[in-house]
Amino acid sequence: MVSFTILVDCPDEKGLIYRITNVLYNRQLNIVKNREFVDGDTNRFFMRTEVEGTADENILQEELGAALPPQSSVKIITARQKKLVVLATLESHCLGDLMVRNHFREWNADICAVISNHSMLENFVTRLGVPFHAVLSEGMSRDDHEHAVAELIDGYDPDYVVLAKYMRILTPAFVERYRNRIINIHHSFLPAFVGAHPYRQAYDRGVKIIGATAHFVNNNLDEGPIICQNVIPVDHSQNASDMAKAGKDVEKMVLSRALKLVLEDRIMLSGNKTIIF
Amino acid sequence: MVSFTILVDCPDEKGLIYRITNVLYNRQLNIVKNREFVDGDTNRFFMRTEVEGTADENILQEELGAALPPQSSVKIITARQKKLVVLATLESHCLGDLMVRNHFREWNADICAVISNHSMLENFVTRLGVPFHAVLSEGMSRDDHEHAVAELIDGYDPDYVVLAKYMRILTPAFVERYRNRIINIHHSFLPAFVGAHPYRQAYDRGVKIIGATAHFVNNNLDEGPIICQNVIPVDHSQNASDMAKAGKDVEKMVLSRALKLVLEDRIMLSGNKTIIF
Amino acid sequence: MVSFTILVDCPDEKGLIYRITNVLYNRQLNIVKNREFVDGDTNRFFMRTEVEGTADENILQEELGAALPPQSSVKIITARQKKLVVLATLESHCLGDLMVRNHFREWNADICAVISNHSMLENFVTRLGVPFHAVLSEGMSRDDHEHAVAELIDGYDPDYVVLAKYMRILTPAFVERYRNRIINIHHSFLPAFVGAHPYRQAYDRGVKIIGATAHFVNNNLDEGPIICQNVIPVDHSQNASDMAKAGKDVEKMVLSRALKLVLEDRIMLSGNKTIIF
Amino acid sequence: MVSFTILVDCPDEKGLIYRITNVLYNRQLNIVKNREFVDGDTNRFFMRTEVEGTADENILQEELGAALPPQSSVKIITARQKKLVVLATLESHCLGDLMVRNHFREWNADICAVISNHSMLENFVTRLGVPFHAVLSEGMSRDDHEHAVAELIDGYDPDYVVLAKYMRILTPAFVERYRNRIINIHHSFLPAFVGAHPYRQAYDRGVKIIGATAHFVNNNLDEGPIICQNVIPVDHSQNASDMAKAGKDVEKMVLSRALKLVLEDRIMLSGNKTIIF
Repeated sequence: MVSFTILVDCPDEKGLIYRITNVLYNRQLNIVKNREFVDGDTNRFFMRTEVEGTADENILQEELGAALPPQSSVKIITARQKKLVVLATLESHCLGDLMVRNHFREWNADICAVISNHSMLENFVTRLGVPFHAVLSEGMSRDDHEHAVAELIDGYDPDYVVLAKYMRILTPAFVERYRNRIINIHHSFLPAFVGAHPYRQAYDRGVKIIGATAHFVNNNLDEGPIICQNVIPVDHSQNASDMAKAGKDVEKMVLSRALKLVLEDRIMLSGNKTIIF
Repeated sequence: MVSFTILVDCPDEKGLIYRITNVLYNRQLNIVKNREFVDGDTNRFFMRTEVEGTADENILQEELGAALPPQSSVKIITARQKKLVVLATLESHCLGDLMVRNHFREWNADICAVISNHSMLENFVTRLGVPFHAVLSEGMSRDDHEHAVAELIDGYDPDYVVLAKYMRILTPAFVERYRNRIINIHHSFLPAFVGAHPYRQAYDRGVKIIGATAHFVNNNLDEGPIICQNVIPVDHSQNASDMAKAGKDVEKMVLSRALKLVLEDRIMLSGNKTIIF
Repeated sequence: MVSFTILVDCPDEKGLIYRITNVLYNRQLNIVKNREFVDGDTNRFFMRTEVEGTADENILQEELGAALPPQSSVKIITARQKKLVVLATLESHCLGDLMVRNHFREWNADICAVISNHSMLENFVTRLGVPFHAVLSEGMSRDDHEHAVAELIDGYDPDYVVLAKYMRILTPAFVERYRNRIINIHHSFLPAFVGAHPYRQAYDRGVKIIGATAHFVNNNLDEGPIICQNVIPVDHSQNASDMAKAGKDVEKMVLSRALKLVLEDRIMLSGNKTIIF
Repeated sequence: MVSFTILVDCPDEKGLIYRITNVLYNRQLNIVKNREFVDGDTNRFFMRTEVEGTADENILQEELGAALPPQSSVKIITARQKKLVVLATLESHCLGDLMVRNHFREWNADICAVISNHSMLENFVTRLGVPFHAVLSEGMSRDDHEHAVAELIDGYDPDYVVLAKYMRILTPAFVERYRNRIINIHHSFLPAFVGAHPYRQAYDRGVKIIGATAHFVNNNLDEGPIICQNVIPVDHSQNASDMAKAGKDVEKMVLSRALKLVLEDRIMLSGNKTIIF
């Protein structure tokens, strides 16, 4: 029974584990799981600790803060159901996988709504009892469309926005609005085949593996911190369309694996990289 | 620069990480890497810590022992080149891989000698400057043969004995003599296809994957604690002999991966299972 | 545009490909894809050919039969939507994956109905517009229960019966009724961990990989011809329940991969083995 | 017992398999294995056939040529030991793997010599009885150095030149001299991380997989037809140097897998892509 997950990000120095576990021990908290990492590039220390027991969060936050050097960040997270809004376009495989997991409560999370720039997926989503909003882009400026989408998202106050094959390019303003809270699935093993038509690019290059990458979205398309990647073998007999079909299963599995890590608070960011505990 | 690796195996209770890191902090040792695990079946706590700094090992051992509950084990390991004796028979792929890594000092270890029940591999081994001993079994009882092999092994006082496709069954006495120090590679994804001719068994069953398993050897054949496993896909076009050929690459990679973990003191034993940090 | 898929299974002898392609050429059929295999154990020749063009199936069947030695089998399959009945119990992951693929017509197949010995999955299945039948086993003999299930199945006249984690043991009579038409997913890399509780068995043995196996069902439990297998790595930190959760994704992907091969008529049987073209 | 391997590359049209197998049947040759592929982009037909039996190669060549449309290529290859020259620099893992396979005659091929721009690997190579030539580049122009290397290569008249981590950029003239006969291993999953320091690039990008690519060399660095690729997972705890170490095993396995395909005449080229039968 995990009561808290504690995420520490601070300058590295001797004795950090001792000082942190000292606070926890004094509060009679039991450590269930613990992982640390020092980023050699930035000399910062990262720690994720699952504890069980009873403690006042504010006091714990204060005591841990006092035990750590300046420029430290401490997050104390209590287990609660997280809220997701999913954006999709026409393709159903990633969305379908998320919807099934949602329906059967596989994760401690709730898909509050699905928003799409098409109405194709509405029937499926509403059949499973999840609100669906089509925000068609026709006749709208990019900014107006995005604004309408953001208004809808904000109405649900989600923890994370999941791009389940959402085929619209996002503006920096949108990305900033949900900073480090947007998870995207890109249909290539990044950094190979950035941008549009990665399977066509893969076919043209004659690669023997194709893949998918789940990542946080930042301002530069397909360049945010990578969470998960996986690949499958392909061969000469598969054209771009065959690869796209075969790739769907990798895409959906990589996205759901990434989302699981996000929802379990296992990811910390160090610059443009993820630390996954 | 890691100075010590500390392995702790003790009954689980609250405050263990705090108490251990307290000792290290007081001795001004810096924790470079740290991993813990509680075995829910036995309620024992396992921890592996890499530290840098200067300390008297005996004092450290004593202080850590004093900080831990009864029934605890503390091992303090200083980095040093480990000694290996390799046993082989006729097949060259695992031995060849180990010999190349040894020649180019890929690991902090030295193959002191290769012992075989055949003389086939002698030319290769001696070309690379490693002593080779053929102990032919013809006309010898199993016990006498094994005794001769053990005498040779003991002359090198190795840390570990590696069975690189050594096709002789070992007696309990031999296994006991090198308790938890014999690493074997079995050519199947155990527990499938225990015993002889696993590729023939795999072919007959029509499996779509074949694999290899590296494990410590205990008294029951192929039943010791598993260190590493891996598989590769096969299809109907491969007969037992094709599978055996294809499997060689998996076998050698699994054995060398396991050996690397052993040599880096990353493995702790909990009953018949390995904990790998 | 594939018009026919031709499956040939006959005694091996010289000139078979020539004779078969001669027939096709004379009928002005174009070969799109072609695969052959000779089973060295039985000395039988297997061939799968996709052709495009127009031909009278009966004449083609007759001409191919005449071109081949005695004891030959020729199947000419025209592309059509296949019918499936899915059996499930409580677990949703395999069924969910199949239902999503079905909803979006990913395959040229239709799930006519889902039958379960529980009513747990009814809400999900009916929401997606597929008939659901709960045949509760309470108070029924095994034979009566199975008979009721078979009656329901037969009402849909399916091409294949898919066991998507159906946790009932089938009688030889049931298996015989749908000979080579039942596909099961077993939650281990067979032949390891036959029978019940494979994840518990895997945990107890301390394996470093877990997996799943899709196979045709014959009279001996978990011993039918294997279609697909895959594995994922596990480590000491995962208990039997963690493994079961992690294994779900492998199970569902292996089952759907197997089913795709079945639906595309890519599988031929040679004794207890599958030949997959 | 395969007597010939026949490689056909011709414009696609109806009846090709029939016409080719007709020739073989008339010559009383038995087809052991057969694979075909039509490249949809170029509308060319590729076929690889292994046959057993006795036939005059010239007559067979003539008859197959007569059976095929204009612009066709037919290669009849009799099994014989192929000759390799390996180029290396400082790293030993790929070379070591090839040398062991060579020593134990795993392939029907012979490493005639190893040529390096350093003398580091000489001791290892000569111990195993293979001629080693150090062509140090100091004080030599690129052209002169390459000329000296090419002279040495030509003295052995090899079928293929293998770049086993040869860290020199080749001139177009050199590449042209051994057109489609140079196999290189690049330490990334191309097209990601072209050029120097791919592991550093991979680390900086924060990828979760690293890989290796074996390819034929053409004029543009790292852009030749890809033969094999594979990847392994990495995580945040591995820096660029750790990735480089972990990548070595993938590199050597990918190179040797590619070389096996090359030596078994399983590769045909279609533009900048490989067809692998």
